[in-house]
Amino acid sequence: MALADDVASLAAKGDTFFLVWAGCLVFFMQCGFAMLEAGTVRAKNTKNILIKNLLDACIGGIMWYLVGFGIAFGDDTDNGFLGSGTGGKAYAIHIEDWRSSYTAEGTDWAFWFFQFTFAAATATIISGGVAERCTLTGYVIYSIAFTSFIYPVVVHMVWDSEGYFSAFNSGTGAAAPVLGGVMDFAGSGVVHLTGGIGALAGAALLGPRLGRFNADGQAVPLPGHSAVLQVLGTFILWLGWYGFNGGSTLSVFGLGTAYARDLARVCVTTTLSACSGALSTFLMAYLVTHVWDIQAVSNGILVGLVSITSGCVVVDPWAAIIIGLIGGFIYTGASKLLVALKIDDPLDAFAVHGASGTWGVLAVGVFCRPEYSYNLLGKHGFIYPNTGPNSPTETYNDVLGIQIVTLLVIWAWVGVTATAMFAALKVTGILRVPAEVEEMGMDISKHGGEAYPDQGTKAA
Amino acid sequence: MALADDVASLAAKGDTFFLVWAGCLVFFMQCGFAMLEAGTVRAKNTKNILIKNLLDACIGGIMWYLVGFGIAFGDDTDNGFLGSGTGGKAYAIHIEDWRSSYTAEGTDWAFWFFQFTFAAATATIISGGVAERCTLTGYVIYSIAFTSFIYPVVVHMVWDSEGYFSAFNSGTGAAAPVLGGVMDFAGSGVVHLTGGIGALAGAALLGPRLGRFNADGQAVPLPGHSAVLQVLGTFILWLGWYGFNGGSTLSVFGLGTAYARDLARVCVTTTLSACSGALSTFLMAYLVTHVWDIQAVSNGILVGLVSITSGCVVVDPWAAIIIGLIGGFIYTGASKLLVALKIDDPLDAFAVHGASGTWGVLAVGVFCRPEYSYNLLGKHGFIYPNTGPNSPTETYNDVLGIQIVTLLVIWAWVGVTATAMFAALKVTGILRVPAEVEEMGMDISKHGGEAYPDQGTKAA
Amino acid sequence: MALADDVASLAAKGDTFFLVWAGCLVFFMQCGFAMLEAGTVRAKNTKNILIKNLLDACIGGIMWYLVGFGIAFGDDTDNGFLGSGTGGKAYAIHIEDWRSSYTAEGTDWAFWFFQFTFAAATATIISGGVAERCTLTGYVIYSIAFTSFIYPVVVHMVWDSEGYFSAFNSGTGAAAPVLGGVMDFAGSGVVHLTGGIGALAGAALLGPRLGRFNADGQAVPLPGHSAVLQVLGTFILWLGWYGFNGGSTLSVFGLGTAYARDLARVCVTTTLSACSGALSTFLMAYLVTHVWDIQAVSNGILVGLVSITSGCVVVDPWAAIIIGLIGGFIYTGASKLLVALKIDDPLDAFAVHGASGTWGVLAVGVFCRPEYSYNLLGKHGFIYPNTGPNSPTETYNDVLGIQIVTLLVIWAWVGVTATAMFAALKVTGILRVPAEVEEMGMDISKHGGEAYPDQGTKAA
Repeated sequence: MALADDVASLAAKGDTFFLVWAGCLVFFMQCGFAMLEAGTVRAKNTKNILIKNLLDACIGGIMWYLVGFGIAFGDDTDNGFLGSGTGGKAYAIHIEDWRSSYTAEGTDWAFWFFQFTFAAATATIISGGVAERCTLTGYVIYSIAFTSFIYPVVVHMVWDSEGYFSAFNSGTGAAAPVLGGVMDFAGSGVVHLTGGIGALAGAALLGPRLGRFNADGQAVPLPGHSAVLQVLGTFILWLGWYGFNGGSTLSVFGLGTAYARDLARVCVTTTLSACSGALSTFLMAYLVTHVWDIQAVSNGILVGLVSITSGCVVVDPWAAIIIGLIGGFIYTGASKLLVALKIDDPLDAFAVHGASGTWGVLAVGVFCRPEYSYNLLGKHGFIYPNTGPNSPTETYNDVLGIQIVTLLVIWAWVGVTATAMFAALKVTGILRVPAEVEEMGMDISKHGGEAYPDQGTKAA
Repeated sequence: MALADDVASLAAKGDTFFLVWAGCLVFFMQCGFAMLEAGTVRAKNTKNILIKNLLDACIGGIMWYLVGFGIAFGDDTDNGFLGSGTGGKAYAIHIEDWRSSYTAEGTDWAFWFFQFTFAAATATIISGGVAERCTLTGYVIYSIAFTSFIYPVVVHMVWDSEGYFSAFNSGTGAAAPVLGGVMDFAGSGVVHLTGGIGALAGAALLGPRLGRFNADGQAVPLPGHSAVLQVLGTFILWLGWYGFNGGSTLSVFGLGTAYARDLARVCVTTTLSACSGALSTFLMAYLVTHVWDIQAVSNGILVGLVSITSGCVVVDPWAAIIIGLIGGFIYTGASKLLVALKIDDPLDAFAVHGASGTWGVLAVGVFCRPEYSYNLLGKHGFIYPNTGPNSPTETYNDVLGIQIVTLLVIWAWVGVTATAMFAALKVTGILRVPAEVEEMGMDISKHGGEAYPDQGTKAA
Repeated sequence: MALADDVASLAAKGDTFFLVWAGCLVFFMQCGFAMLEAGTVRAKNTKNILIKNLLDACIGGIMWYLVGFGIAFGDDTDNGFLGSGTGGKAYAIHIEDWRSSYTAEGTDWAFWFFQFTFAAATATIISGGVAERCTLTGYVIYSIAFTSFIYPVVVHMVWDSEGYFSAFNSGTGAAAPVLGGVMDFAGSGVVHLTGGIGALAGAALLGPRLGRFNADGQAVPLPGHSAVLQVLGTFILWLGWYGFNGGSTLSVFGLGTAYARDLARVCVTTTLSACSGALSTFLMAYLVTHVWDIQAVSNGILVGLVSITSGCVVVDPWAAIIIGLIGGFIYTGASKLLVALKIDDPLDAFAVHGASGTWGVLAVGVFCRPEYSYNLLGKHGFIYPNTGPNSPTETYNDVLGIQIVTLLVIWAWVGVTATAMFAALKVTGILRVPAEVEEMGMDISKHGGEAYPDQGTKAA
């Protein structure tokens, strides 16, 4: 008896360790984003983009503690739209773990930490779209809005046990999730699309950087100042994604579960989609430009990763390869579309995270294997024959429906709130730096000097 | 019966894995320090600071094996001041693990590895204070002294099961620790203060870098050559700190323990203190200089991390936020004080690690929650009502006392030994490089050429 | 009963987590190689070397899925030379894990992921030897050849349960491994020597970079463009090596095993050899050049790591120190020999991985402790007295024999196939870029512009 308790306790403790491990990897993505973004902006705005990356982690941590986590996950008396805080402690997490036998294995704490890293990632994605011209004040305000409210609401609707669209919501009747719930396992939609829409709204409302389009309306390349930093960031992000996707099992030791198998399979599908996304993006860039384009490879890897983030646990490896391949096409198209629309997204944050994120959620509707489906009605991808307890009377291979519904909801919610927020910042004149500051570069204007004070520049 | 053994064995094996995981994260901090320090010195001394960072890991590993570990942890026949080596094998660790059933779970080996990474970190902290002017020979000598003797003695006194001030010392009578033992969980005092005092002694005895103070005695900024490297280093250090603080539980699977909960809570408090330390340091810098100072954010993160390193496992999340906030003030004051004293500490190693480390040890005396206290007399922070088995007859909310005693001991021990060592190096003329070498930069003078030979410089 | 199953399941799940953890660390080595190589080439070829590092991970992942893994590990109907694919699914891995109770703990998937990272590392090692002059097409072709065929065959022969030279091959009679099987625990031979020979063949057939040897045949230094990137890469590789060597236990929780102990001891021996390799290489460089050479420290660390990769689990810590020390001499000699032979290996890839890898395999024959030996005949290193069940009648301290046999096989197999492949690429004119491209640098010629477009150069 006591031994059975010990065994259950070992499993729970192991899962805490696992979540901490995964959280650390996802936290490191903050560094990956910082390096990628620094390398992709011009030298004169290096310190500016770095300070934004540092600050959104710091602000995100505090806001996630004070507000965000409670809205995202609440307690067991929430509605389907947003949480009501935790344990009567307003929106902070449980703190009375010293009460006898209360959360003795630390699951709550580890879960908070793991989810904090996701919130910080979402805020950071946006920083790419608004790079090189957004004020620091505007940046701080939107970071607070996203980590406190806009993002947590998405999390609650899609992932919480009481969310409207959550496949983890076991409620019945009116409390049951729509169509058995969406499968957005690690957040192609919740994290990447949310961040990508934010980046799009910000980029559109800010307008292009000075010189990004010439008098004839042609796009002028403004190359980032360091390919090494781009690649360093890409590798760190790829590494972190194993924690992002793999950690989203939330458990590996759980008795009677197959989460360990899921974790390991997720690592395989995540790897393969990253690889194929890179290759298709790289080849498309070569066909168009006849350049072996390193940024295409880097972004292609990220595209593959974003694309598989929803489906990593419910698709076969061969499907992961196809998902990444298609992601490369979608990214390339989205990137070109934004240029055609004269929207200047310096990091391609929308194309990488928003467009591929949308594709990632849809891809589950295509490739979700029946055996892996965790939709509560047993729905799965349409390429598989209609399979389920009551087939063929009932239809099961139509999970695409709830995937689309959820996409529409995220697009609507984030699109409206992010646009409203950025518009308010614009109207009040605190969104964009003055032209002379932008011209000179923000490092000298605002941050006390150049990022590389000993280094000669082209102009010098 | 056999099954109970299997369960116990699983827990022990899991803890070995956990310690290796944590040790790897702390080891990576060596890389974080290297990048942070490289970015903070001028380009002409880049290779010099990097080679020092590489060498102190390498020298530290060998010395920790030959001497340091045995002094730090010894066996069970030590006195309270220093260890007497392990298992009759002089100061090396046990090697006969192939003896039947001996250390079959690898705990000893994993513990050695984990503690090695702490020793290397301590030596590296000092390198910041003596940067850009200390000879390599002087550096090697002090690295050996610190990893072999000065640091291990502090470890033994504060953390070993027989140390004078160790809350892990269950000895009774004369062998009992002073006042129930200090709570310096992951080493604000043992590691950071020790390193910080070493940096202060080195910086003071070396004197300022050429040009650091002008003829009027005014400080002249000598900006580091790469903000990107500073931020990269900061993120890596933050990441590594989850292993540093989290790993200091030494166990996560332990049957009947709450170490898993402690690990997870440590990740939360560590995160929050890093965040608040960054924000307070950043805002203070802005109030003074009206610059959005990226180095203030980076150093503020480190300050928050150092400040919470003692108390991470015994304070509430809200307290962690306050500890980081106050750390920002203390750091800012200490940094300015050193400049006023004309002590040139290029990395602010004393202000970050020494001053905040001191604060971290004190903060336990303020904020230690009674339920989390592991002081052997049940003492806790003074903000909580006097709580204990014999309250109110006896006083329990006075753990500040032993925290102060331990601080005085560390300040005295490291202050005296480090000063003596650096003074001896100075007297014998092997501490500082000649002025012409310093002027030209050490990379060209001593290391065969520039760190960036293809890159144009301002002067060129 | 059910509880015993739970315990066994916990152990298996824990091992899956462990392999994923280790695989992530080894994957991160890809980033380490990229940074090290970028720092060691000239600025004008930075994007080129980075894109090669990115692409071999991506190509490696796809090829390892389609072909490589099946050749390396096959199923249980293979011969001793190469595998026959897995589970009737051609060369891809098992995918029907949703079948009841099939691979429920995910071991297969995790093992695929872990081994993928090794395959990618092997391909990357070669990129150092052919840097700054190999075409991208040639690079892609050899990456495919190595990850699909050349490397998997070595893996099968040395590590698979049916390999000719594998100590994990429990076959009997004609199916038994030669001389009880080689001990190349984590792959000084399988990975590093294989990569090193590939680098040597590529470097020799490509010929030296323009300007590497002057008209008198004297070597002209072509220093890499960033010491910081070299050091960053070195630290990341060192970190990753704990996953590389430590993860090669493949298990930590296994009931009734001592793998946890082995993991932890591996971390100790790996650390110590890295340290001593650095110190001996550094001192040798100083004796010759009177320069404190940072590249000697970096490469010395890698040499120590490569040298201990075979023996990390079967030697004592003191032996690890000696193995690293000797590695430093061997590396220095090999590096100078290649220069004397006018073979231009920009990264010293052969000296670091090939020469030290050879030494690493041999070192087991010297220092393997009898108690740690996993040679199936109980053979061990010659410095220990002849120890075994039938000693002194039979000889046991002669494991050096099978170590040498395996080295000869790897040298022959990789030497012949790699030479044939590079020769074919050379004959068809697709191996080396034209002289004008090499002169101008590949970044401008082929990759759309400089790696650091904002940065002034010496020439400018």
